[in-house]
Amino acid sequence: MKTKNGKVYIVGAGPGDPELISVKALKTLKKADCVLYDFLSSPALLKHVKKGAKKICVGKTDGLHLKEQDEINTLLYENSCRYRYVVRLKGGDPFVFSRGFEEARYLSEKGVKFEVIPGITSAIAGPESFGIPLTVKNKIQYFAVLTGRKEDPGAEIDAPDCPTLVYLMGVANIRNIVKALRKSGRPDATPCAFIERATTKLARIVKATIGTIVKETANQQVKPPAVLIVGEVVNYAKT
Amino acid sequence: MKTKNGKVYIVGAGPGDPELISVKALKTLKKADCVLYDFLSSPALLKHVKKGAKKICVGKTDGLHLKEQDEINTLLYENSCRYRYVVRLKGGDPFVFSRGFEEARYLSEKGVKFEVIPGITSAIAGPESFGIPLTVKNKIQYFAVLTGRKEDPGAEIDAPDCPTLVYLMGVANIRNIVKALRKSGRPDATPCAFIERATTKLARIVKATIGTIVKETANQQVKPPAVLIVGEVVNYAKT
Repeated sequence: MKTKNGKVYIVGAGPGDPELISVKALKTLKKADCVLYDFLSSPALLKHVKKGAKKICVGKTDGLHLKEQDEINTLLYENSCRYRYVVRLKGGDPFVFSRGFEEARYLSEKGVKFEVIPGITSAIAGPESFGIPLTVKNKIQYFAVLTGRKEDPGAEIDAPDCPTLVYLMGVANIRNIVKALRKSGRPDATPCAFIERATTKLARIVKATIGTIVKETANQQVKPPAVLIVGEVVNYAKT
Repeated sequence: MKTKNGKVYIVGAGPGDPELISVKALKTLKKADCVLYDFLSSPALLKHVKKGAKKICVGKTDGLHLKEQDEINTLLYENSCRYRYVVRLKGGDPFVFSRGFEEARYLSEKGVKFEVIPGITSAIAGPESFGIPLTVKNKIQYFAVLTGRKEDPGAEIDAPDCPTLVYLMGVANIRNIVKALRKSGRPDATPCAFIERATTKLARIVKATIGTIVKETANQQVKPPAVLIVGEVVNYAKT
């Protein structure tokens, strides 16, 4: 293996629509010699990768991990020794529940140069694409973004006192999310919605309340990836 | 005035770096016949506007509002009657403290077609550009995004129980933010940082603690636009 001289770009692919990647991220993707990509980043983006570049699917979607994080880290390191431009393409934003930070830290410890290129997170673009704002002037003045899934399946889900909550990766764990929302004192009538495959052609909104979301998730067969938004802002959704 | 037939695109310009606009947003900007833009959207983006298109600066930055919201709404409406493609270009994301929602609602009431194109928010990209993650696997599992400024200057600032808080528009009101953080029970040693002009060439981080941030903001002459991030994640900032 050659002396390491490559640089790794940890790149946010955006929420789903391949045109919602940033200009900078797309430019970087186009010059990549090697791309390690997720299921969550749009497959349509791979058509921009130059001919002859190495493409490695490293998986990671709700419930399906093709490769473990350690293995991904090793692949990043090894390919940075072989290639000049290595792109780690991630759905959404690399530093929002996507382990981009852990990968950056690993590369830093290994002495590999890296750069993080942000992306549009589905936590914001998902609700937005159905007309749901995260904030409303003088009315709803903050929001929290949370994980709907914890490493330890018994761990309690967080539900802080914020007018708007957005959970990523919450489909499989919706019962525990509802438990946490009830425990936080939110009434069962509180509106919420799953936004499935946000910003893609298959995007769909499933509206419910805290009291009905478990049933609706099953009835409507909501599948990951989907964003759960909880709070009065859901009432603003386009009909 | 002609019958209204134009469409208004409410477009997120991203956090500062003109290349952090999305591919979709840039395409839309290039076909615009009329652009209404903020101070917060990068001036470099205006060079993509086609020759002969109308460009209107509608201001809005901390402490300097060139035009009132009502006036902006009226301008959007009037120009949608005159032009086919009207772009309302906003710094960051249109639905995160940027009144994109209010503008969308106004246009909807007026019967004007519109589309919202999301952008990368400085709330995430700001910290990220200095190596600060919003979440850390199994450790810091949620964050809140808040306004550091309220319409009513006497209104209390929110400081919910989240491990990471990100305040936008907080420079001028830093004393009241610190008051709220202390009242929430956070110790004075809690790390925090202002990230000024995130993702631009003039980007700067000013690190402090809840106990020292007021003094540091003055000493280092922190100016808007700047993002305030509060919590242990600040310790991960690149040195």
